Amino acid sequence: MAMTMTQKILAEHAGLTEVYPGQFIEARLDMVLGNDITAPVAIKEFEKIGVKDVFDKTKIALVPDHFTPNKDIKSAQQCKAMREFAWEKEIENYFEIGEMGIEHALLPEKGLVVPGDVVIGADSHTCTYGALGAFSTGVGSTDMGAAMALGKCWFKVPEAIEFELIGKPTKWVSGKDIILHIIGKIGVDGARYKSMEFTGDGVANLSMDDRFTIANMAIEAGAKNGIFEVDDKTLEYVKEHSKRDFKIYKRDPDAEYSEKITIDLSTIRPTVSFPHSPDNTRTIDEVGDIEIDQVVIGSCTNGRIDDLRIAAKVLKGKKINRRVRTIIFPATQNIYLKAMEEGLLKIFIEAGAVVSTPTCGPCLGGHMGILAEGERAVATTNRNFVGRMGHQSSEVYLASPAVAAASAVMGKIANPEDLI
Amino acid sequence: MAMTMTQKILAEHAGLTEVYPGQFIEARLDMVLGNDITAPVAIKEFEKIGVKDVFDKTKIALVPDHFTPNKDIKSAQQCKAMREFAWEKEIENYFEIGEMGIEHALLPEKGLVVPGDVVIGADSHTCTYGALGAFSTGVGSTDMGAAMALGKCWFKVPEAIEFELIGKPTKWVSGKDIILHIIGKIGVDGARYKSMEFTGDGVANLSMDDRFTIANMAIEAGAKNGIFEVDDKTLEYVKEHSKRDFKIYKRDPDAEYSEKITIDLSTIRPTVSFPHSPDNTRTIDEVGDIEIDQVVIGSCTNGRIDDLRIAAKVLKGKKINRRVRTIIFPATQNIYLKAMEEGLLKIFIEAGAVVSTPTCGPCLGGHMGILAEGERAVATTNRNFVGRMGHQSSEVYLASPAVAAASAVMGKIANPEDLI
Repeated sequence: MAMTMTQKILAEHAGLTEVYPGQFIEARLDMVLGNDITAPVAIKEFEKIGVKDVFDKTKIALVPDHFTPNKDIKSAQQCKAMREFAWEKEIENYFEIGEMGIEHALLPEKGLVVPGDVVIGADSHTCTYGALGAFSTGVGSTDMGAAMALGKCWFKVPEAIEFELIGKPTKWVSGKDIILHIIGKIGVDGARYKSMEFTGDGVANLSMDDRFTIANMAIEAGAKNGIFEVDDKTLEYVKEHSKRDFKIYKRDPDAEYSEKITIDLSTIRPTVSFPHSPDNTRTIDEVGDIEIDQVVIGSCTNGRIDDLRIAAKVLKGKKINRRVRTIIFPATQNIYLKAMEEGLLKIFIEAGAVVSTPTCGPCLGGHMGILAEGERAVATTNRNFVGRMGHQSSEVYLASPAVAAASAVMGKIANPEDLI
Repeated sequence: MAMTMTQKILAEHAGLTEVYPGQFIEARLDMVLGNDITAPVAIKEFEKIGVKDVFDKTKIALVPDHFTPNKDIKSAQQCKAMREFAWEKEIENYFEIGEMGIEHALLPEKGLVVPGDVVIGADSHTCTYGALGAFSTGVGSTDMGAAMALGKCWFKVPEAIEFELIGKPTKWVSGKDIILHIIGKIGVDGARYKSMEFTGDGVANLSMDDRFTIANMAIEAGAKNGIFEVDDKTLEYVKEHSKRDFKIYKRDPDAEYSEKITIDLSTIRPTVSFPHSPDNTRTIDEVGDIEIDQVVIGSCTNGRIDDLRIAAKVLKGKKINRRVRTIIFPATQNIYLKAMEEGLLKIFIEAGAVVSTPTCGPCLGGHMGILAEGERAVATTNRNFVGRMGHQSSEVYLASPAVAAASAVMGKIANPEDLI
């Protein structure tokens, strides 16, 4: 049968010539990922299986990023368990503080994911690598534990929605606005257990960092995965970051999609998700006066160099409102260094922001910027559920780096167009 | 009677022509300090007194530095309480994220303490400002609360030990080695409720940052305060940072000291405090093989620009041992910016360290680098009590930035002399 990109990748990794939606398959894995929250649980599951070694020392990545540098004794113990496992099993891709970063920014940067890969990670935003034309998805720690032993995982083959992107985004619109717009349109269950396959001429107008942001938030529409067609920009990125061989899986011309949605990027406005759901979106023109207490720029969704460049463009020569705590999290050590060399960190500090070492930080209510009762944050992160960033009466407004930076200056949710 | 520096300052602030050791006095205050742990308690005490306004809006400093950026909901609530009090009472010296830093590095930098001041702070390391020839000491939150209302505090006038510093320290010896040497010599109760008054020709060989480090740790010898004679370097520092008038209090030529200890700085070796007490010191030549898991460079003791310069000198072009997590905390936003402009942060990142936003962090077991069971850290912080930086079986070795940086590279406690 005619297959989507996702189905083609899964079929070949399952050793099958074709697969159909709803089919249960077992596929070999190119990369298995865990972090300091999920890996310790997975390690216990791994140990139950009773094998001595992991299936492949080069195909497991363990990244302490959520509560690191260690928030407390408990998180220190979690990291210690993961670290000792990594050393004992000689896992090549264990990244200690100093080499590290947020997992979903780190793996592509280190060249550990390439087009055509099948990747699972015990973290819901593992879908990020779809930006590279890989199949990647989040799993539970039990699946991760089994996968570390066996190098395989079961999947139910997803059906897919095609998102045909056309046109070019306007100046302050980036990947975040596009994915928030889409989630607003289809809802947080709009793509439940489906692939979101991004196609069309408009893709060429998106940077790789835009694409990472979009694929990253596929899970916020309930998708099994998000995936982009591979183009010259993808190949350039992969060539720069990885030495691994890879294969490009093109969809069949007559691949079946449950739906096709065309998005004209030129019509998308800067978009904000209001509390308490990513699909509760409003355009910047509709937000009204929302005073804020904190701005967070970073995370696996928007902590990449393009994101920091955009934020710096907005903040350059400006002063952040004295009532707004602004915390910037470069997503990896390399991004931190690059941002420093480009003068972006200087712009942030001079504007009145603080710059943190890479960490997931407050995104999941972890540490480094937790909200008190009734406080409001504009964040470039990915979820704004009740209590996500702190107190259950606090509120998170999801937005792009441009909107977040403009809001920091204005002290309320603001349109970067009004500022520059 | 003939008085020490400390006694002279206290006498004048009490409106007396002379005071004697053991005398109870009430002195007017030039600055009252609190942080995100102690100020919320002090605010409750302030409110019990029933006055509407604080005694002087310009003479109170509130600094959220211990668990900031907010570690968790509880610390976020603490900060919120402090912030709202600061706004309501129009306290001038409230420093939000972005303008902030660790209190004891921040106040001198902002010019809020000058020679001759009487300063109390609800934080034990308030004694730091003795480097400027001020009387400063830590108090409880209750005293701080009363002081915010009344502008006064009671003191028992301390007797004093004179530390006559002579000679010049050798290349890798800095303020930290000197104060650890002294504490090792006299013990953690060696100066209990006394002033440590630092005099002698050797003082001229110490940078202001050395002096801040030494005065900062006076409390670790049990002292009421530490204080340096004011010299040209002090005046240069004060002129650069403050516009306030000040008065220099010189001790009487025949001032009485309970003891005079002469320290020849040229004979001091790099010194390390072993667990679990600052007075459990060994010279670097006596440490033996102590493998470590973490290095912390920062804190109110050693997070100033000179400290970072020294660490960078050691780390330049080196790679940190992959098994050592190295976390560097510039003590203020200004120090962060300066360190970035001087290329120090680049050296740290390239060596494999992470650089945090200013915070007290792991020094007091707060966050951003807590130790797991059995882990060992070399830290430029000020205390190494049982469990101070995390798990009760973890160990902290106090050292200078030079020793800490060398240890990061070697993976064990190391002598910078052996590395360069």
